[in-house]
Amino acid sequence: MVNIYHFLNGEIRKLTLKELRPALQDPKSVVWVDMEDPMEAEEETIMVAMCDFHHLAIEDCQRGRGDDGHLPKVEDFGEYLFVIFNPVEGVASNDTTDAIARLEVRTSQLSSFLTKTLLLTHHYKQQRSINYVAGLCAKNPQVMGRGPDYLFHMIIDDVVDNYTPMLDNLDDAIDRTEDEVFHEPSADTMMRILQLKRNIMTVRRIAVYQREMLNRLSRGEFPLITTDEMMYYRNVYDHLVRMTDMTDSYRDMVSSLLDAYLSVTSNRLNQVMKVLTIISTIFLPLSVITGFFGMNFTHLPAANWEHGVLVTTIGMLIVAAGMLAFFRWNKWL
Amino acid sequence: MVNIYHFLNGEIRKLTLKELRPALQDPKSVVWVDMEDPMEAEEETIMVAMCDFHHLAIEDCQRGRGDDGHLPKVEDFGEYLFVIFNPVEGVASNDTTDAIARLEVRTSQLSSFLTKTLLLTHHYKQQRSINYVAGLCAKNPQVMGRGPDYLFHMIIDDVVDNYTPMLDNLDDAIDRTEDEVFHEPSADTMMRILQLKRNIMTVRRIAVYQREMLNRLSRGEFPLITTDEMMYYRNVYDHLVRMTDMTDSYRDMVSSLLDAYLSVTSNRLNQVMKVLTIISTIFLPLSVITGFFGMNFTHLPAANWEHGVLVTTIGMLIVAAGMLAFFRWNKWL
Amino acid sequence: MVNIYHFLNGEIRKLTLKELRPALQDPKSVVWVDMEDPMEAEEETIMVAMCDFHHLAIEDCQRGRGDDGHLPKVEDFGEYLFVIFNPVEGVASNDTTDAIARLEVRTSQLSSFLTKTLLLTHHYKQQRSINYVAGLCAKNPQVMGRGPDYLFHMIIDDVVDNYTPMLDNLDDAIDRTEDEVFHEPSADTMMRILQLKRNIMTVRRIAVYQREMLNRLSRGEFPLITTDEMMYYRNVYDHLVRMTDMTDSYRDMVSSLLDAYLSVTSNRLNQVMKVLTIISTIFLPLSVITGFFGMNFTHLPAANWEHGVLVTTIGMLIVAAGMLAFFRWNKWL
Amino acid sequence: MVNIYHFLNGEIRKLTLKELRPALQDPKSVVWVDMEDPMEAEEETIMVAMCDFHHLAIEDCQRGRGDDGHLPKVEDFGEYLFVIFNPVEGVASNDTTDAIARLEVRTSQLSSFLTKTLLLTHHYKQQRSINYVAGLCAKNPQVMGRGPDYLFHMIIDDVVDNYTPMLDNLDDAIDRTEDEVFHEPSADTMMRILQLKRNIMTVRRIAVYQREMLNRLSRGEFPLITTDEMMYYRNVYDHLVRMTDMTDSYRDMVSSLLDAYLSVTSNRLNQVMKVLTIISTIFLPLSVITGFFGMNFTHLPAANWEHGVLVTTIGMLIVAAGMLAFFRWNKWL
Amino acid sequence: MVNIYHFLNGEIRKLTLKELRPALQDPKSVVWVDMEDPMEAEEETIMVAMCDFHHLAIEDCQRGRGDDGHLPKVEDFGEYLFVIFNPVEGVASNDTTDAIARLEVRTSQLSSFLTKTLLLTHHYKQQRSINYVAGLCAKNPQVMGRGPDYLFHMIIDDVVDNYTPMLDNLDDAIDRTEDEVFHEPSADTMMRILQLKRNIMTVRRIAVYQREMLNRLSRGEFPLITTDEMMYYRNVYDHLVRMTDMTDSYRDMVSSLLDAYLSVTSNRLNQVMKVLTIISTIFLPLSVITGFFGMNFTHLPAANWEHGVLVTTIGMLIVAAGMLAFFRWNKWL
Repeated sequence: MVNIYHFLNGEIRKLTLKELRPALQDPKSVVWVDMEDPMEAEEETIMVAMCDFHHLAIEDCQRGRGDDGHLPKVEDFGEYLFVIFNPVEGVASNDTTDAIARLEVRTSQLSSFLTKTLLLTHHYKQQRSINYVAGLCAKNPQVMGRGPDYLFHMIIDDVVDNYTPMLDNLDDAIDRTEDEVFHEPSADTMMRILQLKRNIMTVRRIAVYQREMLNRLSRGEFPLITTDEMMYYRNVYDHLVRMTDMTDSYRDMVSSLLDAYLSVTSNRLNQVMKVLTIISTIFLPLSVITGFFGMNFTHLPAANWEHGVLVTTIGMLIVAAGMLAFFRWNKWL
Repeated sequence: MVNIYHFLNGEIRKLTLKELRPALQDPKSVVWVDMEDPMEAEEETIMVAMCDFHHLAIEDCQRGRGDDGHLPKVEDFGEYLFVIFNPVEGVASNDTTDAIARLEVRTSQLSSFLTKTLLLTHHYKQQRSINYVAGLCAKNPQVMGRGPDYLFHMIIDDVVDNYTPMLDNLDDAIDRTEDEVFHEPSADTMMRILQLKRNIMTVRRIAVYQREMLNRLSRGEFPLITTDEMMYYRNVYDHLVRMTDMTDSYRDMVSSLLDAYLSVTSNRLNQVMKVLTIISTIFLPLSVITGFFGMNFTHLPAANWEHGVLVTTIGMLIVAAGMLAFFRWNKWL
Repeated sequence: MVNIYHFLNGEIRKLTLKELRPALQDPKSVVWVDMEDPMEAEEETIMVAMCDFHHLAIEDCQRGRGDDGHLPKVEDFGEYLFVIFNPVEGVASNDTTDAIARLEVRTSQLSSFLTKTLLLTHHYKQQRSINYVAGLCAKNPQVMGRGPDYLFHMIIDDVVDNYTPMLDNLDDAIDRTEDEVFHEPSADTMMRILQLKRNIMTVRRIAVYQREMLNRLSRGEFPLITTDEMMYYRNVYDHLVRMTDMTDSYRDMVSSLLDAYLSVTSNRLNQVMKVLTIISTIFLPLSVITGFFGMNFTHLPAANWEHGVLVTTIGMLIVAAGMLAFFRWNKWL
Repeated sequence: MVNIYHFLNGEIRKLTLKELRPALQDPKSVVWVDMEDPMEAEEETIMVAMCDFHHLAIEDCQRGRGDDGHLPKVEDFGEYLFVIFNPVEGVASNDTTDAIARLEVRTSQLSSFLTKTLLLTHHYKQQRSINYVAGLCAKNPQVMGRGPDYLFHMIIDDVVDNYTPMLDNLDDAIDRTEDEVFHEPSADTMMRILQLKRNIMTVRRIAVYQREMLNRLSRGEFPLITTDEMMYYRNVYDHLVRMTDMTDSYRDMVSSLLDAYLSVTSNRLNQVMKVLTIISTIFLPLSVITGFFGMNFTHLPAANWEHGVLVTTIGMLIVAAGMLAFFRWNKWL
Repeated sequence: MVNIYHFLNGEIRKLTLKELRPALQDPKSVVWVDMEDPMEAEEETIMVAMCDFHHLAIEDCQRGRGDDGHLPKVEDFGEYLFVIFNPVEGVASNDTTDAIARLEVRTSQLSSFLTKTLLLTHHYKQQRSINYVAGLCAKNPQVMGRGPDYLFHMIIDDVVDNYTPMLDNLDDAIDRTEDEVFHEPSADTMMRILQLKRNIMTVRRIAVYQREMLNRLSRGEFPLITTDEMMYYRNVYDHLVRMTDMTDSYRDMVSSLLDAYLSVTSNRLNQVMKVLTIISTIFLPLSVITGFFGMNFTHLPAANWEHGVLVTTIGMLIVAAGMLAFFRWNKWL
């Protein structure tokens, strides 16, 4: 599906494919072509025939059909800029504890071409940010009037804003997992920590790549981004710096969780071993005492004494108490 | 609440909002506008209408309303410099051991605009450093006469000085936790170590960002900071270098604490296991001996011998002592 | 075996060794000399006598006879470029679980000399990518007409594409090993994890070296690579960036697997210890009770009571249940 | 206490405070002012009134009164260079094993101002290196004649030389601790390893900072260091490179010690567990056998047989030996 | 001992100390002075009186008398280049397993001065590479005719080649230790792993320093190395790159060995614990059963029944088998 928005003299009109070519040649208009899951014929007509984009760039676009898409990058082809961005997908069900394990961060690919008068966006999955900016333009056409670079900034700014709920989910998941580690660690906890770590590493990697990209976009390296707009790209860059900073601290926290989990497990083992030792310390000696008086000697002492059993029982209690007291005094238990 | 200080001819006067505009246009005066938790109307009047600051910078200011505030940064808008600084908050109750866990480092945001004659500070929470510098100006107006860049240096110097008690708290907490690890480790110790680590990482992150920022401010990158004042910014930079150095060594120490904790836990397990083994080594053989003489054989040896019990008892003691001696000799225990 | 392809006027002809020298001197033709496991005489004739390549470069080629070959590198000799690339070998049998341990990544060496009209490739093992590009040229001679640099790019592009199945194998192996770790860890699991790690590190190392090399090739450092072709080398560079990114995340995952394995092992130990403690907790006290009534006292209580055995048995059951309940209540078990 | 050395025409004279001012104005003389724990009045007179040093630098000097002193740094004030160096203090008692734990590395602060004719050194604690160089000058006045930069190099060269015994101490301590870890690990070993690590990190940190500083001093960044003297500063730089290299390898060794300690502890646990298992494997079955013949059945087999006890005893020995053999054969023990 | 080789007109002659001075002044000759464990008088005559080398460089040479020698470095004194290289010593006895622990890597120091016509090598221990190059020159004087820089390259190339057997030894040692870890881990294994790690780190450190040095020598930074020879230094650089790469992967493998060792130890512990638990699970209940029928109740059930013992024995076997089956079914064992 291809949507073509054409801004001229303060108004936005939707164009058909046929009207696109003359619009592209008008230096006063701004054109935004959004290709969502396009047919190959459409790609051929617009990207090759009309715009003459490099075939390697087009191939990179088409790689977005795959699972994770291409890593973020920006390439300067002189007359146009080719930018790949990675929106993050995969909303997590947030209500149950099991959600921690099920939350999985996925990335998709949003490819864009940027010339002086054209913004072409190309993606296979529906993108919230594209719809959001299209809606914004419908309300206020002047947004589009500020040029393709401003329009593009609007899109990636929204993409980056959409990372925030994902980060919040991760933060919640870390908190819940920390609770779990310290209060009811189970055999699945480890699996959840690893899943968390993997999600965080995915988000971090995208953020780092995009941060580097935005850094280049915002420091005047590409003449297609005007000086006025650079400030806006700097703003997106700032968001990504903050984001990588947060994922860094999340990574630290998850590493700590791993340590904590091992330590809690080891503490539980200590606890169990102490119980076993207490049990043995009390009952093994008693066993020997009862065994002693169970021996079949004719001259067993106290065997015929009336209070023998009572005294022996009391002796056993004293021995048990004494051993416990001795070990506790030695801080062995 | 907005406080406006106006320095002219060696005197400081407090201005109302109305008197601000002419003061701003006088190149000989120095103006300090401090906005503490300002109303939106005030922000609109001063920052937009009078000073014409960039709306992205203003939005960054307003982000300070949130939990942690924006990360430290400095941005050069040509006619003015926009700087975000992060004072550290959250005094810890220092008297009880439990305080270690409760101590939580929080950051707030202090945004500033710096022109040749104006310093505008913007924050939502009350800032000790602002009050301190305001007091200083009241006592000695010439402080303000040295220009907005000197005034701003006074504020961030005090902000950085205020990190010191926080660092001392962390140092104390590390020492106390080390004591705890080696002398009375409990299940909570691990949680405290992790909390410590998190606090240290927070302080370290802020210090690193601000160090980089001060480095840029002090090496003549921004013309609004005069050469004479650069030395003062260098001084603040030095403090932050020292601070990151300290947080680095704190981080090392906390990592060591984690190792130590696991090792202490593991030593305790060894101790408990040894006790169990000693108990078993003594009493299991004795159990067999008593069992032996408890067998219902008609021809049980020594069964009818008068000193049988005595000899058996002595034999049991010898066996117990012998086994212990044997294992100790083998360094197994 | 030496294959010589000669492109002139849109046609490709295979040359004999004798026809090579005149072809090399024709500035309009493109020559591709592929030396597969060449004899020393051939090397002498072509590389020394005809092309006059530096003897150190030739020695580097010959090092490819060894196990792993030389590390990737590019060297500019002015009139020619000397490039070493490392194809990855060693297809893994994929069907059984044991394959994980048996999969071993091996590298071979592909050396190339690049002048304005000549591409010389030198290798000891048969290379899929060489055959693939030779086939391509047979179908479409114009491929060779675009020059040795384009031809060379085709080869290394295919070499890099061939890494993909290896990476997929590693990905599968990681998944299978993760399953194994969490569901049926054995003594061999550790060995498999280490083998995996080693394979990943091998792939990663090659990818990093080649990425750096491609980076240099694609940014115009060498005049022998024309500006038009640089875009294609950039494309290969992008693939290698993605590849190192994947190996980085694989490395992270394998490290996590190690942690997980140790944690699972430790959980199993806890489980076993709990069983031992439960057994001891139930039967040691019972042993003492039966021992008690086995003592040979004349006045043993209840000894002659008709229901003595029944009551004692019930008492034993109550004690066993009570101890279990007590420990469970204390969360010790 | 202030010592003023004045070199003129090949002779060194000690000056009083009054004679200092004219000496400072003579471009042919070399003056060395050493301030050891100076009074504030002296600081005021010399550093402010006579030399007009920047008050921030003077404040940095005064910070040396504190515990660890300021971190090493060099600052160029145009007419003079301000350098802070950190001598290492704290000789360790070397004879007993307990010394490892007691050895504590401390740093002090040595601040210096360097002009074309003046070297001013400022410190609170007595410095061996200062006394050593003063002694050298007394013997050979020409040392001082080579200028303040040569004099200053003599001092820091000696400071760095004094690190060597400290490094040797650390090396010894590592060796002793390694012995302890492998041959008689105790609960204190961990504490000693941590103390060692902390000392090493302290030395390393100072060495790294000073190495960076010397690097700047030796590469001609500061015009006050003449080209001839740069070689000498390079020499000190080399020493510091070697020192950081040694501390790096010490750090590695201490990390390895930690691993070794945990592994040795874990081996001991294994040893103890094996003893427990051997004991249980022998005596629990024997207990059951004796229990079997202790049952009060009327028709107990062999009960009345004359050799019953002997055969049973032999049987018990066979069972015990057999179980041990079986487990050993299975390599379980 | 001092050997002086003098190349003039295609011939090499050995000179005495007296003949050296005129030879040094002849710009057409090439002189190689090799000082092996020289007397101080010889050092004085040649290095100071004749060549006028800087005394700091000479002191650095003399540091080679110590244990490890100076770290590799290169210094440009304008008219001459001063280079320190570290040959690796210490051949390991390779035949027994114990050799792993005994293998110890040692470094020595080879200092060299390089002018346009002179190569001076200075070392205290006999150096294989020096003898090898001297032998080569004897056979083919033209080697020396290519100048001191070529001669020097020959020496360090051979020094670096001599690292290879050491690396092979380390590789073997790693393989043998891996075998040991997985098949017969002992208490000494840990010590061997640590010794291995230390050796690898030593080799790695030298390789890294020398790689950096060769990088500088090979990129035209020093005019004394002619452009033609740079290629040869690049070749040595390549060897060192490969070497650091190998030591990097060795380091990774040794780290993995540590993990593996801990995991194997932990698996053994699990194994031992399982044996203990199986023993307890079988025999503790049986003990209670025999105890039950050993109680001295008058009305003990089945006491007088003829098949009581048989039935009880069968019951005991069923209980033992049942418990084992139950635990196995629960996957607890």
